[in-house]
Amino acid sequence: MTIRIALVGFGQIARSHHVPAIAENPAFQLAAVVNPVDVAVPDGVPLLSSFAALQAEDIGVDAVAICTPPAIRPAVARQALAAGLHVLLEKPPAATVAEARNLGCLAAGNGCSIFAAWHSVFAAGVPVARALIAAHGLQSMAITWRENADKWHPGATWLWGAEGFGVFDPGMNALSIALATTGAALVPRAADLTFRPGQEAPVTATVSFTLPDPKIAASAIFDSGYTGSDETWTIDWTLGDGSPLVLSDGGATLEHDGRRLITPRAGDMSSLDQEYPALYRHFGDLITQARSELDIRPLQIVTDILASGVRRAA
Amino acid sequence: MTIRIALVGFGQIARSHHVPAIAENPAFQLAAVVNPVDVAVPDGVPLLSSFAALQAEDIGVDAVAICTPPAIRPAVARQALAAGLHVLLEKPPAATVAEARNLGCLAAGNGCSIFAAWHSVFAAGVPVARALIAAHGLQSMAITWRENADKWHPGATWLWGAEGFGVFDPGMNALSIALATTGAALVPRAADLTFRPGQEAPVTATVSFTLPDPKIAASAIFDSGYTGSDETWTIDWTLGDGSPLVLSDGGATLEHDGRRLITPRAGDMSSLDQEYPALYRHFGDLITQARSELDIRPLQIVTDILASGVRRAA
Repeated sequence: MTIRIALVGFGQIARSHHVPAIAENPAFQLAAVVNPVDVAVPDGVPLLSSFAALQAEDIGVDAVAICTPPAIRPAVARQALAAGLHVLLEKPPAATVAEARNLGCLAAGNGCSIFAAWHSVFAAGVPVARALIAAHGLQSMAITWRENADKWHPGATWLWGAEGFGVFDPGMNALSIALATTGAALVPRAADLTFRPGQEAPVTATVSFTLPDPKIAASAIFDSGYTGSDETWTIDWTLGDGSPLVLSDGGATLEHDGRRLITPRAGDMSSLDQEYPALYRHFGDLITQARSELDIRPLQIVTDILASGVRRAA
Repeated sequence: MTIRIALVGFGQIARSHHVPAIAENPAFQLAAVVNPVDVAVPDGVPLLSSFAALQAEDIGVDAVAICTPPAIRPAVARQALAAGLHVLLEKPPAATVAEARNLGCLAAGNGCSIFAAWHSVFAAGVPVARALIAAHGLQSMAITWRENADKWHPGATWLWGAEGFGVFDPGMNALSIALATTGAALVPRAADLTFRPGQEAPVTATVSFTLPDPKIAASAIFDSGYTGSDETWTIDWTLGDGSPLVLSDGGATLEHDGRRLITPRAGDMSSLDQEYPALYRHFGDLITQARSELDIRPLQIVTDILASGVRRAA
């Protein structure tokens, strides 16, 4: 049975990655696009201006993928779950942990599958890194997530609002990978946050963590105000045998002990080209198996850091 | 079997409430006091300068109650749990949810009871309020928690640091009562926070919440910078039948529909006089039954609010 899905919020990632991932997956059919302002949509796909307008039409939708800015995702998700639709939530699933848990309860109560889609977990290098860490153990982990957010998200004022997460919007991708690969509880110990004038969300953060084994050193540098030429989305591990393991390009590249194990596919523009098809395959499986997956851990770590970190001007 | 307990951190609440609650409870015996600086301690009770010094002595301790400032509680708790001791943690149990969960895992792994002691939940009015709300349902809830923190905690600089919680140090008491009485998930929706110059923790907060039934209106005003004469620790509910239910004096007084149901005991200086004995009876039960109780919900709500609230100068 084909899952008829509506995309709610039709920004850049919805157009460039959700649409092709749905198109290549025989389990799904793009049934509608919901966007508050007029946008070009794929041929033959109806465009509605709101979720209420979608419900008013007799389109026959089974699921929605919510790609709006994060602050309004929970309200849309509540409407969709109340209507009995399966829900894919772009990351982060909500602005607060309480809200994310609330959505999980609503989904369970309504018999819907809900999927908090941390896309970076589906990067090609992640399962191989996880296997190597499981096999060899870990001495240390260092996250470096450094980019020019103003270049990637021009005019995205929501990113710098109180519920936009700022540097942690990309930073949560690193944390989702760190959790998926080490399989461990990461406890933030000390965090320094800097803020640009008039912004509610931080532009840089340095964080130290402990893992269940306190001998493992773990730290992270997040910088969304970086303007140099070497933007970096890298996790450096030292395995138990002393060998270096480096996941870079946001997860698309993996090197172990100087040897390249995973390389981006020829023609791919970014790691997202592999992540979104895998993510939709997983969403289809969850719906077929009547399961949900709502991993709140990356959001939990970030709310802990934002609540307890020391803040200063950038 | 008597539980030999050490008090770690011997500030005002430890002296005025932990000591008498232990003295009146036959299940416990005060075996030692740990405090980094010299203080007067009860006759015959040894004073040690650190947890390490306590371990070096042959005192025979079964449990600790950790009453230090919050930022160092987890480190002491980890040492105590590693030594196989049962742990009572003053509220809040940690600066972050991740850290609190981590302590729960350590306790379970070491066969220790851990108790996150939200003292306000043991106030006399709380069980009666809970029963009335369960019987009649709820239309609304309004928290007003307004005090002069500088009067109650003179010189407590930790209170205004990044891990001190500021207005939410007392405010968490209200949230713990709200959760215990309504039995519901409180999801913070919008929060405004103000900060005094140079302080990392807010001095005021206004928060709106939703409950699972979205028709129930819930909001809170927290103010720790209040200097007027009518300090207030009150929750006002409107029950399903329209009758008002008012819990005041931090939980020591309860009125329903204009009728006084619970009154502070004659001679009590504060609601804490009833809360701490009840709290120690519960800790004794947990140890006897080899159970733990680590309710992280009040801390979760506060970290969500601190992470997502809008911030401005007081």
